[in-house]
Amino acid sequence: METFIFAAEIIGTIAFAVSGALTAMRKNMDVFGVIILAMTTAVGGGILRDLILGIQPPGTFGHPVYGIVATATAVILFFPAVRRLLGRNITVYHRIMLFMDSVGLGIFTVVGIQTAFEHGNRNIFLLVFVGVLTGVGGGVIRDVLAGDTPYIFVKHIYACASIAGAVLCAALWPINRLAAFAGGAALILLIRFLAASFRWSLPRAAIFQEDVL
Amino acid sequence: METFIFAAEIIGTIAFAVSGALTAMRKNMDVFGVIILAMTTAVGGGILRDLILGIQPPGTFGHPVYGIVATATAVILFFPAVRRLLGRNITVYHRIMLFMDSVGLGIFTVVGIQTAFEHGNRNIFLLVFVGVLTGVGGGVIRDVLAGDTPYIFVKHIYACASIAGAVLCAALWPINRLAAFAGGAALILLIRFLAASFRWSLPRAAIFQEDVL
Amino acid sequence: METFIFAAEIIGTIAFAVSGALTAMRKNMDVFGVIILAMTTAVGGGILRDLILGIQPPGTFGHPVYGIVATATAVILFFPAVRRLLGRNITVYHRIMLFMDSVGLGIFTVVGIQTAFEHGNRNIFLLVFVGVLTGVGGGVIRDVLAGDTPYIFVKHIYACASIAGAVLCAALWPINRLAAFAGGAALILLIRFLAASFRWSLPRAAIFQEDVL
Repeated sequence: METFIFAAEIIGTIAFAVSGALTAMRKNMDVFGVIILAMTTAVGGGILRDLILGIQPPGTFGHPVYGIVATATAVILFFPAVRRLLGRNITVYHRIMLFMDSVGLGIFTVVGIQTAFEHGNRNIFLLVFVGVLTGVGGGVIRDVLAGDTPYIFVKHIYACASIAGAVLCAALWPINRLAAFAGGAALILLIRFLAASFRWSLPRAAIFQEDVL
Repeated sequence: METFIFAAEIIGTIAFAVSGALTAMRKNMDVFGVIILAMTTAVGGGILRDLILGIQPPGTFGHPVYGIVATATAVILFFPAVRRLLGRNITVYHRIMLFMDSVGLGIFTVVGIQTAFEHGNRNIFLLVFVGVLTGVGGGVIRDVLAGDTPYIFVKHIYACASIAGAVLCAALWPINRLAAFAGGAALILLIRFLAASFRWSLPRAAIFQEDVL
Repeated sequence: METFIFAAEIIGTIAFAVSGALTAMRKNMDVFGVIILAMTTAVGGGILRDLILGIQPPGTFGHPVYGIVATATAVILFFPAVRRLLGRNITVYHRIMLFMDSVGLGIFTVVGIQTAFEHGNRNIFLLVFVGVLTGVGGGVIRDVLAGDTPYIFVKHIYACASIAGAVLCAALWPINRLAAFAGGAALILLIRFLAASFRWSLPRAAIFQEDVL
């Protein structure tokens, strides 16, 4: 079980680092910016969670493997040959990235809730909040630093998947930890795949010409 | 007194949530983004304050009523009919919003100082800072997430009202808590209304063609 | 030694405040925004560091001299006559600013590491992180609030100088504190001057037309 969670975390770390590194390259940042944005996307959510929970210094510094994996990912992606190789079959690339990114969103959300439980928190609002924060927080920092509107606000049901999984996980936790962990992560993956397959999206406000507010 | 403060907090929460929800709709965010931005604007300042003071997890999670009110406000505003109704008499709408937003700025500022005092802080710089942070912090997060220049930096004397009220409140606190609370909040309301009536604004730097810095 | 460090901190505070104030004026902020952005740039890095280390409330509130110096700097710069005077010999101005800003980057980085050590942290990743955060964090907040892409991501090797100095400082600390402090700060100054003299910059990803990621 431990090994399985660790593998999922590494998959998620790589996916998040790829998204951060590509964002930085699109914004014409130098190699330093590429590495920092990759690391921020990968470990930023966990750092925000630890600040909210009062875990200081944040746990990520005691487990440098995630930051090192993110840095390595950014450095490898920096080579044009690697990007050309990945871009050769763009459909396959997008499918793999969707899978890895969903695994990351799922595992980080439930790991966030687990961390909160282990530090004695039982408040359902807090549990769901830190779960979602761990899952989507890194991406929000990435977008703010890159000057983009945070992805979670404008596209698909990314954060909703995280919220649904977080609620399920937090509700099941007192009953059975394994079911909570696996169920929460699986629900997030399921919603993400269904949303991608059927192109689900959330309603927007219909703004009319006569809207004056 | 407790009831009065609570009523003022709810008025402020609704006003802040309205500003967050409308910002999100203008940016074409989906319903999730609208709710999150409404909640962030309403409770974000208090969360930042609690991080500065070391109150972890932040108190807002133990008092979910504010987040729930903000969510309900966002959902109601999502209906075009509601926005059309509010927009029918735009002058009245703006006056009501100015009143509610000013009540929110006033009450959140003094509640921020009260929280700092209750946790044993006596440093005047810290007291004023967390008061102002509680009052304007949510709006700053809103603007950063929405990609706007923070409102408090470019318009009117919004934050100055909060600072003046915070200084008065912190100075009066050791003498009389009720006077500090009421006086600070009242001064903020007064400055906001005077600024709106007489269209006060703060000086800007006169940038000349020959300015090369 | 104490006096020397304090003098270096004041030089850095003024340099950081100038950069924040000029950014705010370029963005047409009012006098309040100019002061806040000057203060944020000067003390923001230290506040972020203290949140990461769990020093709450942050130490800056107990040492208001830095905030006061930043405020005074902003107010003085607000006068057009001062900016015209500084702009009269723009080459000299840029050299002085490069020197002051480099002193600030150097001293804040090593002071950040010192603060972490004094609070019992020995983790090398954490030490380097908080050193760099103290050095560059204020500038990142400045750029995010002003709506710019953070300077450290797009230009020169600003943050790399801070990282190199932080690694040296953290490595030398257990051997000799004075050597760690002076060596780290000196290395940062050296790299900054060399980078400015020889127009060093870091490689960017070569984005090709055929890049599809």
